Amino acid sequence: MKILVIHGPNLNLLGTREPGIYGNTTLTNINAALQALAGELGIEVAFVQSNHEGGIVDAIQAAKTDCDGILINPAAYTHTSVAIRDAVSAVAIPVVEVHLSNVHAREEFRSKSYIAPVAVGQISGFGVDSYLLGLRAIFSHIKLRL
Amino acid sequence: MKILVIHGPNLNLLGTREPGIYGNTTLTNINAALQALAGELGIEVAFVQSNHEGGIVDAIQAAKTDCDGILINPAAYTHTSVAIRDAVSAVAIPVVEVHLSNVHAREEFRSKSYIAPVAVGQISGFGVDSYLLGLRAIFSHIKLRL
Amino acid sequence: MKILVIHGPNLNLLGTREPGIYGNTTLTNINAALQALAGELGIEVAFVQSNHEGGIVDAIQAAKTDCDGILINPAAYTHTSVAIRDAVSAVAIPVVEVHLSNVHAREEFRSKSYIAPVAVGQISGFGVDSYLLGLRAIFSHIKLRL
Amino acid sequence: MKILVIHGPNLNLLGTREPGIYGNTTLTNINAALQALAGELGIEVAFVQSNHEGGIVDAIQAAKTDCDGILINPAAYTHTSVAIRDAVSAVAIPVVEVHLSNVHAREEFRSKSYIAPVAVGQISGFGVDSYLLGLRAIFSHIKLRL
Amino acid sequence: MKILVIHGPNLNLLGTREPGIYGNTTLTNINAALQALAGELGIEVAFVQSNHEGGIVDAIQAAKTDCDGILINPAAYTHTSVAIRDAVSAVAIPVVEVHLSNVHAREEFRSKSYIAPVAVGQISGFGVDSYLLGLRAIFSHIKLRL
Amino acid sequence: MKILVIHGPNLNLLGTREPGIYGNTTLTNINAALQALAGELGIEVAFVQSNHEGGIVDAIQAAKTDCDGILINPAAYTHTSVAIRDAVSAVAIPVVEVHLSNVHAREEFRSKSYIAPVAVGQISGFGVDSYLLGLRAIFSHIKLRL
Amino acid sequence: MKILVIHGPNLNLLGTREPGIYGNTTLTNINAALQALAGELGIEVAFVQSNHEGGIVDAIQAAKTDCDGILINPAAYTHTSVAIRDAVSAVAIPVVEVHLSNVHAREEFRSKSYIAPVAVGQISGFGVDSYLLGLRAIFSHIKLRL
Amino acid sequence: MKILVIHGPNLNLLGTREPGIYGNTTLTNINAALQALAGELGIEVAFVQSNHEGGIVDAIQAAKTDCDGILINPAAYTHTSVAIRDAVSAVAIPVVEVHLSNVHAREEFRSKSYIAPVAVGQISGFGVDSYLLGLRAIFSHIKLRL
Amino acid sequence: MKILVIHGPNLNLLGTREPGIYGNTTLTNINAALQALAGELGIEVAFVQSNHEGGIVDAIQAAKTDCDGILINPAAYTHTSVAIRDAVSAVAIPVVEVHLSNVHAREEFRSKSYIAPVAVGQISGFGVDSYLLGLRAIFSHIKLRL
Amino acid sequence: MKILVIHGPNLNLLGTREPGIYGNTTLTNINAALQALAGELGIEVAFVQSNHEGGIVDAIQAAKTDCDGILINPAAYTHTSVAIRDAVSAVAIPVVEVHLSNVHAREEFRSKSYIAPVAVGQISGFGVDSYLLGLRAIFSHIKLRL
Amino acid sequence: MKILVIHGPNLNLLGTREPGIYGNTTLTNINAALQALAGELGIEVAFVQSNHEGGIVDAIQAAKTDCDGILINPAAYTHTSVAIRDAVSAVAIPVVEVHLSNVHAREEFRSKSYIAPVAVGQISGFGVDSYLLGLRAIFSHIKLRL
Amino acid sequence: MKILVIHGPNLNLLGTREPGIYGNTTLTNINAALQALAGELGIEVAFVQSNHEGGIVDAIQAAKTDCDGILINPAAYTHTSVAIRDAVSAVAIPVVEVHLSNVHAREEFRSKSYIAPVAVGQISGFGVDSYLLGLRAIFSHIKLRL
Repeated sequence: MKILVIHGPNLNLLGTREPGIYGNTTLTNINAALQALAGELGIEVAFVQSNHEGGIVDAIQAAKTDCDGILINPAAYTHTSVAIRDAVSAVAIPVVEVHLSNVHAREEFRSKSYIAPVAVGQISGFGVDSYLLGLRAIFSHIKLRL
Repeated sequence: MKILVIHGPNLNLLGTREPGIYGNTTLTNINAALQALAGELGIEVAFVQSNHEGGIVDAIQAAKTDCDGILINPAAYTHTSVAIRDAVSAVAIPVVEVHLSNVHAREEFRSKSYIAPVAVGQISGFGVDSYLLGLRAIFSHIKLRL
Repeated sequence: MKILVIHGPNLNLLGTREPGIYGNTTLTNINAALQALAGELGIEVAFVQSNHEGGIVDAIQAAKTDCDGILINPAAYTHTSVAIRDAVSAVAIPVVEVHLSNVHAREEFRSKSYIAPVAVGQISGFGVDSYLLGLRAIFSHIKLRL
Repeated sequence: MKILVIHGPNLNLLGTREPGIYGNTTLTNINAALQALAGELGIEVAFVQSNHEGGIVDAIQAAKTDCDGILINPAAYTHTSVAIRDAVSAVAIPVVEVHLSNVHAREEFRSKSYIAPVAVGQISGFGVDSYLLGLRAIFSHIKLRL
Repeated sequence: MKILVIHGPNLNLLGTREPGIYGNTTLTNINAALQALAGELGIEVAFVQSNHEGGIVDAIQAAKTDCDGILINPAAYTHTSVAIRDAVSAVAIPVVEVHLSNVHAREEFRSKSYIAPVAVGQISGFGVDSYLLGLRAIFSHIKLRL
Repeated sequence: MKILVIHGPNLNLLGTREPGIYGNTTLTNINAALQALAGELGIEVAFVQSNHEGGIVDAIQAAKTDCDGILINPAAYTHTSVAIRDAVSAVAIPVVEVHLSNVHAREEFRSKSYIAPVAVGQISGFGVDSYLLGLRAIFSHIKLRL
Repeated sequence: MKILVIHGPNLNLLGTREPGIYGNTTLTNINAALQALAGELGIEVAFVQSNHEGGIVDAIQAAKTDCDGILINPAAYTHTSVAIRDAVSAVAIPVVEVHLSNVHAREEFRSKSYIAPVAVGQISGFGVDSYLLGLRAIFSHIKLRL
Repeated sequence: MKILVIHGPNLNLLGTREPGIYGNTTLTNINAALQALAGELGIEVAFVQSNHEGGIVDAIQAAKTDCDGILINPAAYTHTSVAIRDAVSAVAIPVVEVHLSNVHAREEFRSKSYIAPVAVGQISGFGVDSYLLGLRAIFSHIKLRL
Repeated sequence: MKILVIHGPNLNLLGTREPGIYGNTTLTNINAALQALAGELGIEVAFVQSNHEGGIVDAIQAAKTDCDGILINPAAYTHTSVAIRDAVSAVAIPVVEVHLSNVHAREEFRSKSYIAPVAVGQISGFGVDSYLLGLRAIFSHIKLRL
Repeated sequence: MKILVIHGPNLNLLGTREPGIYGNTTLTNINAALQALAGELGIEVAFVQSNHEGGIVDAIQAAKTDCDGILINPAAYTHTSVAIRDAVSAVAIPVVEVHLSNVHAREEFRSKSYIAPVAVGQISGFGVDSYLLGLRAIFSHIKLRL
Repeated sequence: MKILVIHGPNLNLLGTREPGIYGNTTLTNINAALQALAGELGIEVAFVQSNHEGGIVDAIQAAKTDCDGILINPAAYTHTSVAIRDAVSAVAIPVVEVHLSNVHAREEFRSKSYIAPVAVGQISGFGVDSYLLGLRAIFSHIKLRL
Repeated sequence: MKILVIHGPNLNLLGTREPGIYGNTTLTNINAALQALAGELGIEVAFVQSNHEGGIVDAIQAAKTDCDGILINPAAYTHTSVAIRDAVSAVAIPVVEVHLSNVHAREEFRSKSYIAPVAVGQISGFGVDSYLLGLRAIFSHIKLRL
């Protein structure tokens, strides 16, 4: 089993960006934690980060050929991208959406997700744990369907 | 560490209620799975189910004295109860909100939660796994704060 | 055939409450009229009245085991209760919604029903007759499906 | 006592039109059933069907001189016609609104009625039974006022 | 100079329809008063009344060939008819909109007019006087443009 | 019979202000035309112009003691002033609202009037004629009530 | 194969009506062009124009017996007619909606169509060409389904 | 004169719940202060607190038989309960609504009250004083009506 | 301690203005009652009434130098004045908002206050008593802060 | 004459993506069909597909120098991209918008197009035919303007 | 060249009013800074401050005769005054709108300006610099048009 | 001090694009004018233009290491990009938003900016001058903070 982890725009700044909201962990830390958990679960993980909406669409499409699922933090594009929504609908593999912060506790426009309605589910508010829980979620979801 | 698990209205019907949406698992199954995971994590869990908004408010208030956190599936009250929101704000312990189904993929009114903005975070769409991920989430959240 | 008749909040005050809107008939009168009509139709009726949203959820769930249908006047909960809507969806038996007054001719918020979309149909505006027509409606609906 | 039954636009197609939603009964069947019930109740019924908003306004106005009440299924005009609403207000006789399908369970725009606020009441969702219940409703309503 | 006076739906009932709102004057009275004023102003008037939206569209189109202006009380169609709006835009002659009652003081939906934005102006609230003022208004408007 | 004519904000600029919308007539011209018509009708008119919302409220209140009616063009305050609305409600004399331009054919916010619902009626779109028609309207309205 | 072409309200005025928006072509020209293209495609076309909503409903219903498809320009009724929408749903033959002008580039209310969601598709903005493209569209659509 | 004081959901936590918003005073303190003021005014007070919407409906109904008025802080139910609104309308005794915090200065949804439109009046923002002022308000209101 | 009492637009008409809504008490009566209560409380009161939004802004600003608090009935400006809101925010002294009538039970637009969110609290619906309760409220509020 | 055909995001997946909505045709098939029709019409076509909003903006800008028109299926960006709208406005050549599926029959957000108001027209719902009709439409539109 | 600088309501309190938002600079300081810059640019400046909407309308009208442009900070009236908007439209001279604070980063209602659509442009968020930049902006704008 | 100037989508077309709205100046002209002013102010400027949302996010992130501030004209992305908003929040340096045209005087959707609430301020409507004023604004803002 192989899972693609997609980090959306500005997540490359993690650790420096608004630590009051996002904490001090860097993307490298998150990927390492995911790698560790993947090892535990006996699965493979790959990572991509992009600030480009089209880049994320490309990555989702590419995952179709060699991945069994996608773990995505669409960040800002969560609230504005129909293109990513359509890419998720278009590929036949399951997608889980995660957020570091609690999107339901911030600006009104962050509580709306274009992606969630076509994803398996959504996890938000647990910092790095959102990713780890998300990896577990997609792992179980796929295993159940095997 | 002790976590109170609160099941909202109609969840007592699980396994019989709209299996197309909610699956065949019963509440007893879920509680058993949670109990098992709690054992693994070395924590204690207690369970309550109520169809009454006020009953859930009572349970949250009561948890304050002997629990370290609450795992809640407010079900229908998610979308209509300011009273439960206020109870969550009023008790000083962390609360995690979970949903069996993907609330963002159903009727428009189900995508709005009164509870989420005052909870630590929200997990939805993973069936029984939503509860198990939620227990892990609150466990980590509390441990981190110790 | 057995039908449960559920009277929602404040209907116990009938005959005293705002007679300009609701008339002088009491709940006892209504139940007697329903009993009489049930006799005519050769069916059984049971009655419950509750001011509690959760109490109504409980009653709907309980009806599942020994009733063939539910005749409900959800009163104020018509406009605010997702929990009752979910209970109606969850039990497999048909439900008919009735209102004494014409809810479409009063405050704007009374024209919206959370229950109607998951009920067989809705009858409003005919005073006690709304109940009697509702009993006929659910009776025919169930007979047709036998 | 004489009741005018008005069938709105496209109801002449009944039995052929979208049977999934409206069933196989034809308008002739409905009128026959109404005629039978009218016989039972000892009243007279007349029928009119029109696809024209203005035609329905004309019919309502004409009813004023020789009918004691109107049973109307305004169909599509329910949601768009202020002219029919004004005709109903303008004639001094009681009007009952009926719908074959459950208008509250379909497209959002079908849950709004311009007619209901000026009618005695509304019945929707019971197929042909909606008409029969409606005839009983207007019959009782008029008898009560005699 | 010839002016066509168009009376919209239900105005044929004037004098009998809701006298609390519309008074006891009949359409014949109004037409006589308009005829008298037309005599004073030295102009010709013609009259048409229709309960049919399409009938009013037809009348507006027909006026194009032998009238210099239109005085219209679109009644209920004021609030729902894009077809009448388009007919008014399509004919090259000036149109004045009048209302017996004060449309801004009644139900919210009556304060919106589809016709007014393409008419010369709107007069509402003065009973029969609305028509007489309207005739003066269109008379002056046309004379000014000669 | 004495009528107070109130001109709202910026109307003192008439003749210079946006002639494309408001024409070249000055306020002096309008007052002269009103004076002439008042002579014809055998009534008295007084005039006031103010750019101040409070000034207009003061004028309306003052009119109560020695005027039989008010002809008002509230201009910009039409759309924003609850204070003028309340003043109109508070004085017992009839008020007619007029507008030079067709307020229903301009920016969306100009189609809403706070004053019209408490006035006798509204006339808009006829340039200076709006005032003259308004004077006739209030004259007839008062005479009818004598 | 026979196609009914329906022209909605005010389209009979084409060539004279607002040429800035609709051009100088008359309805006769359009029908001739459609006839010519029909000849090319080897199909039959019939034409109807009506200013009456009910008349268009009648025409759609009638088409059911002897036409294979409908090409409709509902004009003003596009934005207000649920009755035409229901007629389109009720007849089993495919319907294509066309508009001479670009409805998405005009008043806000013209961008909403009640018909389009139940039609095969919509073509707008190409003048007479909208009709010709529409005829090709419905021709291909029907041929594909044969 | 006897007044029932009703404390809504979560008010039993006062003194411990979010002291930044609600202060350190407990419900016992508030009741004592009310008791003292009641003594001064020469009236009787009774107290009830409930986290249950239905419980509050029950209390309001019960007050009808032996109380002259109700002082209610509906707390969270202020914004969601039509049932409590209907109970207030149904009992014939005057009701005054109070809030500890300034509901107009918090989340948008807290500025809307279902109860206020059917109450005598509303007092919010003065902490414990809101209750004391409310008791004075209902006392004067009742005395005036004697 | 000195409190400035500000009466907004049209309150000078009290006793004559719409007695059905506002009663027969005059502003002089209210001021006398406030003076009497001020005597009881051992504080000083000053009064100002203005129909001018700017005049009220001026009064609030002036109060800053010699008053300890403001009791304001902004009347119509409650719903439209950001300028008064900003004045209240700008001066450092506490402000209490009062209304004679129950603003939550009248036109929709009267339930929204620009002032309340920056005031200490709001009291509405108790007639003259609203002022007296308001004076007590601001008196206690200031004393508590001393 | 040379036309640039732009395929928006996810259209490269055609044939594999949600065949229930989009059919089995691939982008290569569509381009071949367009090429064939272009041959018939005696014009040149070029193709570009991009998942990047900025890439589509670049392509539109580039078309300015060597193309006479653009045929665009903006796919997901239809509903979210002001940048593409501005690019269309900025280049002086005509643009026609096409959609494979009927955008007016899907999720609410798909019925709104940022591009259509600045395009010549819009065609939606005819599968591959939408493109072929679009090519004919832009061809005629340009030829007419020569 | 002469520019009138208009300071809206509550700006006379600058330096004392909410220094957290507006800083410690007084209006005198701002005027001095503007005077200095005006000297540099070789132009004349005049100043007016008013808390009265009508006063600002008066000032704008007066500027017409002897000023070449207006620099205005309408403060609270930005969001509520159609009268000031109309005054700006009515005078033929250019107007630039400035704000000390960033109006787009505060309460929702402050992001809407009635004035900006009829002004040359808007500058907000730079404290005193907003005025200085505004003076440069109007200076360049006028010079360019000479 | 070094400032990065970012030009958003379609600004590379300046001078050719819709000169009626944007004038004839090219981006090269603007950059030269900014360079000249930067020389005057003794600061350094760098320039970037991108049609890609992600490209602008990249540029903002890169600026963090060697720039003291950003002057940005986000053009179309102003109204749709949460990603650029988040990038602005994420870098610790001040950002000023500028627009050539008056965004408040165009289509409704252009008056909303996702960037402005997290920028220092916004300048719009002054053509090239918007950039020059913006450079002065960010220069002063940074100097003040040194």
